[in-house]
Amino acid sequence: MIATTPKPPYYAVIFSNIRTDVDEGYAEMAGEMVRLAEQQAGYLGHESVREGLGITISYWTDTEAIRKWKANTDHLLAQQYGREKWYSAYKTRIALVERDYGFEL
Amino acid sequence: MIATTPKPPYYAVIFSNIRTDVDEGYAEMAGEMVRLAEQQAGYLGHESVREGLGITISYWTDTEAIRKWKANTDHLLAQQYGREKWYSAYKTRIALVERDYGFEL
Repeated sequence: MIATTPKPPYYAVIFSNIRTDVDEGYAEMAGEMVRLAEQQAGYLGHESVREGLGITISYWTDTEAIRKWKANTDHLLAQQYGREKWYSAYKTRIALVERDYGFEL
Repeated sequence: MIATTPKPPYYAVIFSNIRTDVDEGYAEMAGEMVRLAEQQAGYLGHESVREGLGITISYWTDTEAIRKWKANTDHLLAQQYGREKWYSAYKTRIALVERDYGFEL
């Protein structure tokens, strides 16, 4: 569940969000966006957790890959529904991962 | 619950983790680490969520602030216990937030 990512540098898109109580199509669209993202050039992986606050982090090779994903037609529709129905607030942060380290039992 | 952060650039430390089933002192230490981090120079805020996978993101002014926090004596002990008892796996990513945008109802 922790994304396997290559040696830095690479990019992280941190999407922190709070949902409304509107469910209408949300789970289907969220699943569809994961499938679509995984097919995009430059996609490296993602991690997604919700506990009231939701955090989804997707990892990308470069900013051009992120730009293309943001401009994907189906994703644009999901973004519009997100603002209209599903989210009461969100913040997106685009960040260059400079180094990483980890541990596994 | 979404951290209020200044205009970029600033840094994000993304800590993705999976817990063991050992609870021994974990919640107390986690709370204490939040209190300690908030007192550190250069601390900007944090977001923390667990749903099986845990993601805690702390935001910092610069890498020097992150380095000092990582080397804090009490935090070093928490990191040691983390590897010995509480986590079965984690990954820490240090990332420069280059831009951000958001939405709020």
